[in-house]
Amino acid sequence: MDTIEKIKELEKQISELKQRTADIEDTHKDELSLVIMSGDMDKILASMIIAVGAAAMDTEVKMFFTFWGISALRDSKKHAKNKNFVSKMFGIMLPKGKNKLKLSNMNMAGMGPKMIRRIMKKQNVMSLDEMFKQAGELGIEMNICEMSMDLMGFKKEEMIDYPNLGYAGVATFLADANESRNQLFI
Amino acid sequence: MDTIEKIKELEKQISELKQRTADIEDTHKDELSLVIMSGDMDKILASMIIAVGAAAMDTEVKMFFTFWGISALRDSKKHAKNKNFVSKMFGIMLPKGKNKLKLSNMNMAGMGPKMIRRIMKKQNVMSLDEMFKQAGELGIEMNICEMSMDLMGFKKEEMIDYPNLGYAGVATFLADANESRNQLFI
Amino acid sequence: MDTIEKIKELEKQISELKQRTADIEDTHKDELSLVIMSGDMDKILASMIIAVGAAAMDTEVKMFFTFWGISALRDSKKHAKNKNFVSKMFGIMLPKGKNKLKLSNMNMAGMGPKMIRRIMKKQNVMSLDEMFKQAGELGIEMNICEMSMDLMGFKKEEMIDYPNLGYAGVATFLADANESRNQLFI
Repeated sequence: MDTIEKIKELEKQISELKQRTADIEDTHKDELSLVIMSGDMDKILASMIIAVGAAAMDTEVKMFFTFWGISALRDSKKHAKNKNFVSKMFGIMLPKGKNKLKLSNMNMAGMGPKMIRRIMKKQNVMSLDEMFKQAGELGIEMNICEMSMDLMGFKKEEMIDYPNLGYAGVATFLADANESRNQLFI
Repeated sequence: MDTIEKIKELEKQISELKQRTADIEDTHKDELSLVIMSGDMDKILASMIIAVGAAAMDTEVKMFFTFWGISALRDSKKHAKNKNFVSKMFGIMLPKGKNKLKLSNMNMAGMGPKMIRRIMKKQNVMSLDEMFKQAGELGIEMNICEMSMDLMGFKKEEMIDYPNLGYAGVATFLADANESRNQLFI
Repeated sequence: MDTIEKIKELEKQISELKQRTADIEDTHKDELSLVIMSGDMDKILASMIIAVGAAAMDTEVKMFFTFWGISALRDSKKHAKNKNFVSKMFGIMLPKGKNKLKLSNMNMAGMGPKMIRRIMKKQNVMSLDEMFKQAGELGIEMNICEMSMDLMGFKKEEMIDYPNLGYAGVATFLADANESRNQLFI
C-alpha cells in the first residue's frame, strides 16, 4: 500500500540522517586538543590555564607536547643514563622542568620569571606546580611527541610523574584533533 | 493501529535528531575565536587582517587579548595612577599601543616596523589604526584577559577607546571558542 | 486524511533536517587548514610533519604561508629581477629557502639547524626536502599570501617548483578554514 511504502521510505531517510549525524558527532566531541611546541614560561602558563579551565568546564582535554614544549615536563630531580654527547648537550642547554622556563619576552636573565611567579603568588593565581597537580586530578591527558624525544635525546625516566602521561606520534595527535571540537597550536 | 504507531515512532526519532542537530549547531556557529597572546607587530597585523577579513565575510569575530597581546590595546595618550613599582616597570618596558610594537623578526631597533608601515602605506594596505576602526564598525568583540591585566598591573583607564571592549577571564574565551567553528591561537 | 497529512508533515521535517545536516557537513569537512606565519626551521618542520601526517590519513590539507613563513618556499637557486631597494634588502636578510632556516631556540649561529639535520638523518626522519616532495605527491595545497609577497617584495619567479603552489589572499584562507574541521596557526 502507498502509506506503508511512504513510511518505509521515511524510515530509510531517517536512518541515513542518523548515520550522518553520528558521523558529525564523532568528529565534534566536547574535546580540546592542544599542541604545545613552545617551552616559554608564558606559553606554558597560557596552555595550562586554558587546559585546566576547559577541563573544569567538563571538556575532555588532550595535550600533545613537542619540541621545546617537552622541557616543561622534565623532572628537575631525575637523571637519565647512557646519553650520547648531543643528548647531553640538549639536556644541559634546555630548561630542566616547568620551574626553570624562560619568558619569551622580558626574561631579563631569569628575573622576569621570578617576578611573574612572585606576582602570581601575591594575586593568588595557582602556580605551575599546582596547575599540573590539578590537571592530573581533572584527568587531562598529556602526551609527549616520541620523535622529538628521539631528536633531542630525552629519555622517559627524566620526565615528571603525572597520572596521564603518555608517549605518542603525530598520528595520535591528529586522531585526537580530528575527533575534538577545538584545537590550538601553542 | 500499526500505521499510527509507526508514525509516532518516526516522530519520536525525528524529534531526537532535531535535538542532536541543534546541539551541533550551537557549538558550530559561523564564529571565529582568536586568542592573541603575542604583542609582536607582525602577529597583531596578522590577527587584525584575519579578524577584519572574517567579519567582512559575515563571520562573528571575538578576539581575546592576553599577556603581551594586551600591549596592542594600550592608549599611548592615557595614563593610569596609583601603580605599584612592578606595574610601573611593566608599563615602561612594554610597548605603549599598536603603533609602538616590535617585529618578531628584523626589528632592527625599530627600523623594521617603520619600514613595514611605510611599505603598507605605499601599497595601500590599511594601517593598524584603520584596521581597529574598521573592526569596531564591523562589530568585532575585543576582550582583555583580566588575569593578565592583574599580573602586569595594567588598568582599564589605560586602554584604547573601542566600541566593543570588554574584560573577561579564560572561561569566557572557552565558552566563545566552544560555540565557534574556528579558533586560532596567535 | 490524517495519516497522509502526518506523513507529509514528517517528510517536510526530514527535508529540513537534511538541509541543516548538509550545511553542517559543508563546514565540517575532513580538511586541515594551516596558517604558517613563522619562518623558523622548527616551526616549518612541525607544520610539515603535521601536514604530511594528516594527508597520509586521507585528510585534505591546505597550507597558507604568510609573512616569515614564505622564506621556506624560496628557491635557493632562483633569482628575481627588477627589485627595488627594500625588496632586495628583505631578499638578502631573510633565509633563502627551507634549508637555510634558523631555529627559534638554540640556533647558535646556524650550528643548531645543522645538528638537527644530522640527527634527523641518523634517526631516519625525512628531511624537509623529502617532506616537501611527499607533500606534493599527497596533493597538499600550498598557498602564498599575496599581500605578504607585496610587502616583502618577493616575486613568484623566486619560489620553489611545487605541484600545488598558488597565490591567494586572506579571503581564500578564511574560506578554506571555514569548510575545514581543523585549523592551526603556526
